[in-house]
Amino acid sequence: MIAAWIDGGRVRVRDDLPRPPLEPGEAIIRVSMAGICGTDLELLRGYRGFSGIPGHEFVGRVEEGPREWVGARVVAEINVTCRSRHAEPLCRSCADGRPTHCLRREAIGIYGRDGAFAEWLRAPVSNLHRVPQALPDEVAVFAEPVAAACRVLRQVEREIEHGRVTRALVVGAGRLGQLVARALAIRLPGLKVAGRSERNLARARAAGLAAGPVTAVEEAAYDLVVECSGAGAGFAVARRAVRPRGTVILKSTHTNELSIDISSVVVDEIRLLGSRCGPFEDALAALERGDFEVRDLIDDRLPLSAAPEAFSRAAEPGVAKVLLVP
Amino acid sequence: MIAAWIDGGRVRVRDDLPRPPLEPGEAIIRVSMAGICGTDLELLRGYRGFSGIPGHEFVGRVEEGPREWVGARVVAEINVTCRSRHAEPLCRSCADGRPTHCLRREAIGIYGRDGAFAEWLRAPVSNLHRVPQALPDEVAVFAEPVAAACRVLRQVEREIEHGRVTRALVVGAGRLGQLVARALAIRLPGLKVAGRSERNLARARAAGLAAGPVTAVEEAAYDLVVECSGAGAGFAVARRAVRPRGTVILKSTHTNELSIDISSVVVDEIRLLGSRCGPFEDALAALERGDFEVRDLIDDRLPLSAAPEAFSRAAEPGVAKVLLVP
Repeated sequence: MIAAWIDGGRVRVRDDLPRPPLEPGEAIIRVSMAGICGTDLELLRGYRGFSGIPGHEFVGRVEEGPREWVGARVVAEINVTCRSRHAEPLCRSCADGRPTHCLRREAIGIYGRDGAFAEWLRAPVSNLHRVPQALPDEVAVFAEPVAAACRVLRQVEREIEHGRVTRALVVGAGRLGQLVARALAIRLPGLKVAGRSERNLARARAAGLAAGPVTAVEEAAYDLVVECSGAGAGFAVARRAVRPRGTVILKSTHTNELSIDISSVVVDEIRLLGSRCGPFEDALAALERGDFEVRDLIDDRLPLSAAPEAFSRAAEPGVAKVLLVP
Repeated sequence: MIAAWIDGGRVRVRDDLPRPPLEPGEAIIRVSMAGICGTDLELLRGYRGFSGIPGHEFVGRVEEGPREWVGARVVAEINVTCRSRHAEPLCRSCADGRPTHCLRREAIGIYGRDGAFAEWLRAPVSNLHRVPQALPDEVAVFAEPVAAACRVLRQVEREIEHGRVTRALVVGAGRLGQLVARALAIRLPGLKVAGRSERNLARARAAGLAAGPVTAVEEAAYDLVVECSGAGAGFAVARRAVRPRGTVILKSTHTNELSIDISSVVVDEIRLLGSRCGPFEDALAALERGDFEVRDLIDDRLPLSAAPEAFSRAAEPGVAKVLLVP
């Protein structure tokens, strides 16, 4: 089959790969469409020393597997955990109810498992979610990053309910920041977005959000700041923008270490909160309800055979989502 | 009067300083005893460009001020806020109920205000707390750092109540780590302490705590880790020790920036929480009940005229509390 292949800091197209074999408890999915995200670009830069087929945002159709799944249009959670594998005894994270932190986990297209920039991929059926019929592929393909955006909401929902979080800022108006901002704005209508790319800021405004340049961010003014820029400079903006005892959610993975003025975090009693994968149920429900638009984020659709060009395109400033179509 | 004086990275004794004048709403306190803490050593290293009289842990007796306070034995909160000054309108932090984060604050012996390494100091009466009669000066002098330790408990009390925090570790067995560990162990009896100084570890064990070297800390094993070492190496130990979705409380101010692997914080969804000043009511109640011992932490008492030697002594490895007696 054809697939994109990352190895040694380079992405290329291979046509010599076998279609993955069916394993017990798993399904073979024919990929309809897949999205390139920041983590894929980080993998290309050497994150986790990845080599193999990347891609973890996708929608496809089950071709082989348990009968009740064959023919289903699906998206998939990326973490392959003790539960996905029916492994006993469960690791401590799975036993404690934190399956996305499974100590033995593999992650589709990120480590231990090939991903979705291919004609077919395999995934445990316990990772699959059926796509509501009303959702076209180009919306369903956003399920994974929208779930990650919904994770932020889950992390602060109690503070929102109790009125301790009302003023919120998203730093970074790229592919991740846009989704986080849109998901959060449902509960925090006064939310603002700060970014560098005028194109992305315009996109946020067209989606009904208040958006402006990072240079205009008010200091110590926000209860909650979500760092989605993936850049050290973005963290500095977030740190300045949050009020004492406020929360900075760290959403982006960075390849490099970040230098932090810890005294200022201690003195202002800031809460820094890492945030990763989120609930697919929330994401699919939000997309089905049409809580917010996502299709305006699609800047390009390229065939899988043009994967290197697609990666370059996705790395351009101001470009949000680039889709690969096998 | 005599006082210790920090200026240009040096501490010396001055005898040419006037006794502070009484201001409205304030009291003149004759210092009975004062303690040197890590922040004082940081001030000497240039933290906040401080110059003046340091010292913010003390017990003393009111000599001048409102009649109901004269003669009272007191300790004092260090943050001089809008409320301390009866300033209207309140700043945003004070208005929002976060007076320790007052945007106009001065901090006794840290910035904007002279401190307690002196014969007398002045403080707003709204900052004062009467010392219960049963508490000797050498216990009451710990009120401020014990309050800071109690602040940690306040920050995680809900998680403790809900059983989400049971396994806890304190990194750093010095003056701050000892108090944090003792205060937390009341609610978290299985708590462990990790440190470098065998002397301090022995001190923790004598106080009934499980204590061992930082090299023996189990990885990804703790719901809560409190970083009290003030060293980058201590943060690295804390980061490794905490489980996914666990909490690292940052208790120490560091003069230097700290380099953090943000991706690991994001991927493991760690919560980093800055922690500073705490509730004096909690501290005085804990000390009065005798929840834990503090006097074993006193390694030296020196006259105020020996302040430079006292600072050197406090900076020695394995030394916990050094007291200055005017």
